[in-house]
Amino acid sequence: MRVYDIIAKKRDGYSLSPNEIEALIKGYVDGTIPDYQIAAWAMAVFFQGMDEEEIKALTHQMIISGDSIDLSEIEGIKVDKHSTGGVGDTTTLVLGPIVAAGGIPVAKMSGRGLGHTGGTIDKLESIPGFHVELTNEQFIKQVNEIKLAVIGQTANLVPADKKLYGLRDVTATVNSMPLIASSIMSKKIAAGANAIILDVKTGNGAFLKDLDEAIELAKVMVNLGDNFNRDTIAIITNMNQPLGWAVGNSLEVEEAIMTLQGKGPEDLTKLCLELAAHMFVLGKKTSEFAKGLELAEEMLYGGKALAKFAEFIKAQGGDATVIDNLEILPQAKHMQKITSLHSGYIESIETQEIGRAAMLLGAGRSKQEDIVELGVGIMIRKKIGDQVTKDDILAEIYYNEDEKAQKVIPIIQAAYSFTKEIINKPPLILKTIN
Amino acid sequence: MRVYDIIAKKRDGYSLSPNEIEALIKGYVDGTIPDYQIAAWAMAVFFQGMDEEEIKALTHQMIISGDSIDLSEIEGIKVDKHSTGGVGDTTTLVLGPIVAAGGIPVAKMSGRGLGHTGGTIDKLESIPGFHVELTNEQFIKQVNEIKLAVIGQTANLVPADKKLYGLRDVTATVNSMPLIASSIMSKKIAAGANAIILDVKTGNGAFLKDLDEAIELAKVMVNLGDNFNRDTIAIITNMNQPLGWAVGNSLEVEEAIMTLQGKGPEDLTKLCLELAAHMFVLGKKTSEFAKGLELAEEMLYGGKALAKFAEFIKAQGGDATVIDNLEILPQAKHMQKITSLHSGYIESIETQEIGRAAMLLGAGRSKQEDIVELGVGIMIRKKIGDQVTKDDILAEIYYNEDEKAQKVIPIIQAAYSFTKEIINKPPLILKTIN
Repeated sequence: MRVYDIIAKKRDGYSLSPNEIEALIKGYVDGTIPDYQIAAWAMAVFFQGMDEEEIKALTHQMIISGDSIDLSEIEGIKVDKHSTGGVGDTTTLVLGPIVAAGGIPVAKMSGRGLGHTGGTIDKLESIPGFHVELTNEQFIKQVNEIKLAVIGQTANLVPADKKLYGLRDVTATVNSMPLIASSIMSKKIAAGANAIILDVKTGNGAFLKDLDEAIELAKVMVNLGDNFNRDTIAIITNMNQPLGWAVGNSLEVEEAIMTLQGKGPEDLTKLCLELAAHMFVLGKKTSEFAKGLELAEEMLYGGKALAKFAEFIKAQGGDATVIDNLEILPQAKHMQKITSLHSGYIESIETQEIGRAAMLLGAGRSKQEDIVELGVGIMIRKKIGDQVTKDDILAEIYYNEDEKAQKVIPIIQAAYSFTKEIINKPPLILKTIN
Repeated sequence: MRVYDIIAKKRDGYSLSPNEIEALIKGYVDGTIPDYQIAAWAMAVFFQGMDEEEIKALTHQMIISGDSIDLSEIEGIKVDKHSTGGVGDTTTLVLGPIVAAGGIPVAKMSGRGLGHTGGTIDKLESIPGFHVELTNEQFIKQVNEIKLAVIGQTANLVPADKKLYGLRDVTATVNSMPLIASSIMSKKIAAGANAIILDVKTGNGAFLKDLDEAIELAKVMVNLGDNFNRDTIAIITNMNQPLGWAVGNSLEVEEAIMTLQGKGPEDLTKLCLELAAHMFVLGKKTSEFAKGLELAEEMLYGGKALAKFAEFIKAQGGDATVIDNLEILPQAKHMQKITSLHSGYIESIETQEIGRAAMLLGAGRSKQEDIVELGVGIMIRKKIGDQVTKDDILAEIYYNEDEKAQKVIPIIQAAYSFTKEIINKPPLILKTIN
């Protein structure tokens, strides 16, 4: 089997056999197939796509390229969540406590990652004392005892994806439905959960700008989950503006705590409740979505989720008094209000630009070795549909260096578009696929 | 300018600017852009194509990546010929003497190359004593004196193409119209001729199987020639069966000599006359094609072309008595006739399979370091439209090793298809584009 022939076959629109996909991925991981052949193949996949059997075979090869986590010692149905990313997405910190409080074991492996802000681990580590250096035994014991634990991604999970994603990232082949689906799902499946809820973002702050593409990706992933015996549900959510108010690390922890106190932003709250409801169904805590939603609301508004968050922080060495003392979180040196240059209704927000602004302030990493400034970021104060007059406050920026602040102020101002017409608040949850 | 953005732009169907193409090719040649990014770009070009301006810019960058030959010391209009390859294509050895005899200077740089048989140099070197090691001064002097010289490709011509072609060859991106056109034309333009005749092959023995694709490639190349101030004409010719009888090195020299004696295969003779006629027009020896054809026939049938071939052989150290003593050419140890397994009219010949058989006998190279067996090859005795009965001779193979012969006999037999219906001889010249 020549690699050349496999590339040409895909280029010409034919389906690859499981053996051909196995040869490609194994050869790539063991270094016998060079980057340039895989780059050409990935671009051919970008144009020609893959059918269900190919995606399944690719996902399988990705999974078996490394270790799989065994969560069988954790009692109950393990439900994992994945979001396809966006700007200001604080769901994990809110959702975990809600579903754990409702009895779903949440055994979360997380990373630091690249992006507008740090990863879930960076955010959690902004809580004084909090650490993710647990042994596997400690991790499993903690989940069994309090239903919620977060550990750093230390295992050799899906090395094929690491290598392939790195290559796609520099060859403009990231945005390929089958490659995205297999990348996400291989990691979720290798991470050992029994069921998976997917939050697929669409809009100008998501990598899938187009609703139809998001729906297609969600369908492919749900199908893939089923193929690997993982109960999978996907919701498509609106990322045409940042989710919630906060874009930053300790700012998002503050927002999460406020949300768990029942006084968080409406959209973030709604999304967390919706995701939790699906997780209760997937985890067989409730038989239907409406009951799941009731349970989620009970956990959130009854205070059990907040108590669970405190319990979780304490279990991992953190200062749980943070839930009443937000000021113990890392703070930026300065804050500046950003005012509107126009009057009218907010018609749109260039969400990627908000993300870029947060990155420029120092909230995220563009390279692995970058150091995240935990206290910096943006608080969005006006969103789509809000009426503003000139000089109203659109947002606040939290920053350490004035130079950086001066750079982002015009970016944030330019990200907002206004109209004289009344604009309805856009719907948050666009579709559910299961 | 990020390479990533250039790849993504092409992937999304936009045209690249001359600056972007310059950045790509310069960066690739100087090693700052890695193979895998160029591989992804080439596959994107395969799917999205290139417009006229892009192809022109790419060709320009290829040309200036290395040296250009200065043929200005050669008197007259230098007309070069390029064929897109096929099986049993002996035209250069016949055409050169015809047009040189008619007064067109032929200053031919040639290579050894990979393929079913050796390159023009391998074929010529099968004539005892013949060599291509001329200095540039000797080369130019010889063309001025006798109008015909062949030199090995020593100059640093189009290194960008060498590198890019090598990459395309292993990433299934050879068959892209703009990449083929710029590869061929950059080399022809850098080689210094004033005018160019292109023989674009189509059919099962050519790399373009489809007539429409061949026409498109020809149009792109003719246009490109004009863009670089080279008078360019293309003819599209049928490669649904081997051209002439011979597929091999000394076998093709024999065939060329027989053709120059006026007793060669009909199709090869016709093609050489047609190409020569165009070259006489391009070289302004005649004002129109019909006059060019007359002059070509006069040179061929009047014996001047054969005399020119002898003069040329002698000038480059070869034994010119070969034209009367074909047996001084390298001979294979054995010959075996291949008989038909069927009766009927020959409907088709799998031309690529005939080429593969010649390669297996040792006539060509699959790797640069392979040694060509000059005497081996195939003589095709029956072609499309011929009526045969079982056990008639289809072809003869000339070989040194019995094991190789046993391997190719069934390949050659299987390459022929038969029918009971009368089959017309297919047309040779399908279209002329200028």
